Amino acid sequence: MDEATIELPREEATHLVRVLRLSAGDHVRIFNGRGDEWDARVHETRRDHAVVRLGSRIVPPSEPRTRMTLAAAVLKGDKMDDVVRDAVMLGVAVIQPLVTMHTETSLAILARRQRVARWQRVAVASAKQCGRAVVPEVSPPRPFFDALATVNDAVMLVEPSVAPRALALREVPARASITVFVGPEGGWAEEELTRARESGAMLLTLGAQTLRADAVPLIALTALRVRLEDL
Amino acid sequence: MDEATIELPREEATHLVRVLRLSAGDHVRIFNGRGDEWDARVHETRRDHAVVRLGSRIVPPSEPRTRMTLAAAVLKGDKMDDVVRDAVMLGVAVIQPLVTMHTETSLAILARRQRVARWQRVAVASAKQCGRAVVPEVSPPRPFFDALATVNDAVMLVEPSVAPRALALREVPARASITVFVGPEGGWAEEELTRARESGAMLLTLGAQTLRADAVPLIALTALRVRLEDL
Repeated sequence: MDEATIELPREEATHLVRVLRLSAGDHVRIFNGRGDEWDARVHETRRDHAVVRLGSRIVPPSEPRTRMTLAAAVLKGDKMDDVVRDAVMLGVAVIQPLVTMHTETSLAILARRQRVARWQRVAVASAKQCGRAVVPEVSPPRPFFDALATVNDAVMLVEPSVAPRALALREVPARASITVFVGPEGGWAEEELTRARESGAMLLTLGAQTLRADAVPLIALTALRVRLEDL
Repeated sequence: MDEATIELPREEATHLVRVLRLSAGDHVRIFNGRGDEWDARVHETRRDHAVVRLGSRIVPPSEPRTRMTLAAAVLKGDKMDDVVRDAVMLGVAVIQPLVTMHTETSLAILARRQRVARWQRVAVASAKQCGRAVVPEVSPPRPFFDALATVNDAVMLVEPSVAPRALALREVPARASITVFVGPEGGWAEEELTRARESGAMLLTLGAQTLRADAVPLIALTALRVRLEDL
């Protein structure tokens, strides 16, 4: 038993007091986003202020053996929120938003709209919802070519029509880490495919159907986890 | 070359004329929803009327080797539309909507709102979008116990906490057909789990995280297709 008391961050305190309407004595579960989780009781609350007393430590569900980064082109509208939410649920370690040649937004627009902070909040909410004790990092958006150049474990999802000589899932070797590149609604530009091939990225197709851009991350992460025997 | 002319069904004719704004001479692709597909040219159009002349037959992407039925509890709001759309994209042969003990609607309400007709339209739209030449059948909703009793190839998705002795994915044997049962937001009732066990259904968990109900069909169908080496 650890009898430490902890003051919650302001946003979580507000949620606890105003939305969940909890008060002293109520049971909660507390996690630090880095894999630690505890049973706890609310000790005291004020408007935007909450202190909890930690009880026993909980063993959270284990994390995937393969460290997965999702490097995904920013989609239109709010669809990236769903991509972040799903990726957290499927156990990614890092989410790297990308601006590609066919992405219909820019780094400047994403920065002005403070999208990273928003996606980080979505990641926290998703971790809570799916019982995951680790909150993945959402990195600041980067240009595709830049992100591609800094990794040596790239697997790039491509449509069957675009890359007839791409790998099938069973040809992807087991590995300790993997960075999964997923394109936007308009797909990859020819130049991006060429650069990926030259850089040694594995090009991967999943089945013969054209998959919806916002469903590809969920399908690809699931398929890769099954392939790597992690699910 | 097959020089037959075909009059399109009224709904498709309206779409071709009013939404796509095509007219005589334009190229289209025509499929009959049962696996046949052709290149074609528009021959003549009027308001809600379109005749096309069939050209060469196209070889559509192949269908999954394992015949998959998705037996999914009807979700809240319009979420079932997304489930149908995703299931078509992932190659199911049949979609069987279910009313379970924790489903927040009834067979009567679903019938009054003509949900089957709506889901069938969603299925057609999804098949067009993903380039699939087969439109799965959307069956009329059935009670869970009824649907369970009529199949002998049931795989039931359960949360890790509910069924600690459920199978993992690698324990699911290859088979010619599979009916994948997915529960509603509130999960399965104890009685439903018991009945499923007694009937010989395989209970399956996917990973340690709690998955969102509306994401489970996509994740489960992907995982099973990979496991059965179909993707």
